[in-house]
Amino acid sequence: MMKGKKTKGLVIVYTGDGKGKTTAALGMALRAAGHGKKILIIQFVKSFKSYGELKFVKKFNCGIEIKTMGKGYVKIKGDRFPFEEHVKAAKKTLKFAKDQILSKKYHIVVLDEINIALDKKLLTIQEVTDLIKQKPPDLHLVLTGRGAPKKLIDLADLVSEVKEIKHPFKFGIPAQKGIEN
Amino acid sequence: MMKGKKTKGLVIVYTGDGKGKTTAALGMALRAAGHGKKILIIQFVKSFKSYGELKFVKKFNCGIEIKTMGKGYVKIKGDRFPFEEHVKAAKKTLKFAKDQILSKKYHIVVLDEINIALDKKLLTIQEVTDLIKQKPPDLHLVLTGRGAPKKLIDLADLVSEVKEIKHPFKFGIPAQKGIEN
Repeated sequence: MMKGKKTKGLVIVYTGDGKGKTTAALGMALRAAGHGKKILIIQFVKSFKSYGELKFVKKFNCGIEIKTMGKGYVKIKGDRFPFEEHVKAAKKTLKFAKDQILSKKYHIVVLDEINIALDKKLLTIQEVTDLIKQKPPDLHLVLTGRGAPKKLIDLADLVSEVKEIKHPFKFGIPAQKGIEN
Repeated sequence: MMKGKKTKGLVIVYTGDGKGKTTAALGMALRAAGHGKKILIIQFVKSFKSYGELKFVKKFNCGIEIKTMGKGYVKIKGDRFPFEEHVKAAKKTLKFAKDQILSKKYHIVVLDEINIALDKKLLTIQEVTDLIKQKPPDLHLVLTGRGAPKKLIDLADLVSEVKEIKHPFKFGIPAQKGIEN
């Protein structure tokens, strides 16, 4: 873990409606892995798909682990689960996250899409802030997803909002493998 | 390269004053590399440092290449170069980028910090838009850096602005290895 009087593990939030939040967390993971750090990315809400990042960590033993534990996006077309199932999955994911965070095995833990879990009321802000307060001082914790609540932003050290200025899907260009997923 | 009537190589811009632009481009590269794509990241302005991403691509032969060709940030404390040297480096980098883009060896080319090169007048917008117009149709081109000019945004398919909401350095917490670089 990182030493030094002034270094500390940061609480980093990527929020906003633009593309690039999970992507930035992945880039951060790549960078840290370059420095020999261990990174765990825990994906809330998202269910398993052939995401490029999952293929990547399978192919290259690079110090990045990803655990996908959601049931898919909530209350959208194609959502096959009752709300309670989403809640159950989110609580289970949070419990897993807590165990991993307290294990001190990682330098960085990314709670991907946890802001969406908060926004959709799968988790309470209290549950999440309690977890943040328990994290080891050296651990960097990254929380992504649109709709980060103010209480989370208040608690965070670094907050970036990714704003959508222009998006091609609105002009009829479909998602691009390796770009969007 | 990607096939299909409706797929096309996108012009993607990450701009704004927040942390996460280069990082998002790195994450996109990781994702695409997971899908077996070839990615070249060309860094304008930045000069060689022990960046995590450079260490990463050296360690893992994962389909991502990085070429750092700048002379460091322009007109800031510690800038040892006359302005003309920065211009020369930027022009050389752009020429290199053009050769690589036209080579069709890559699925994605990232022109990292090229927006800063534009903002600092190391390159003209005409030079950059000319290059974009020449790119192979299937190639995704990613341009990062704060201060993307309007003409570039007009030409792009996908534009995300990363806004700084909160930054720890302002509160006296120093840069963290593996997080900031």
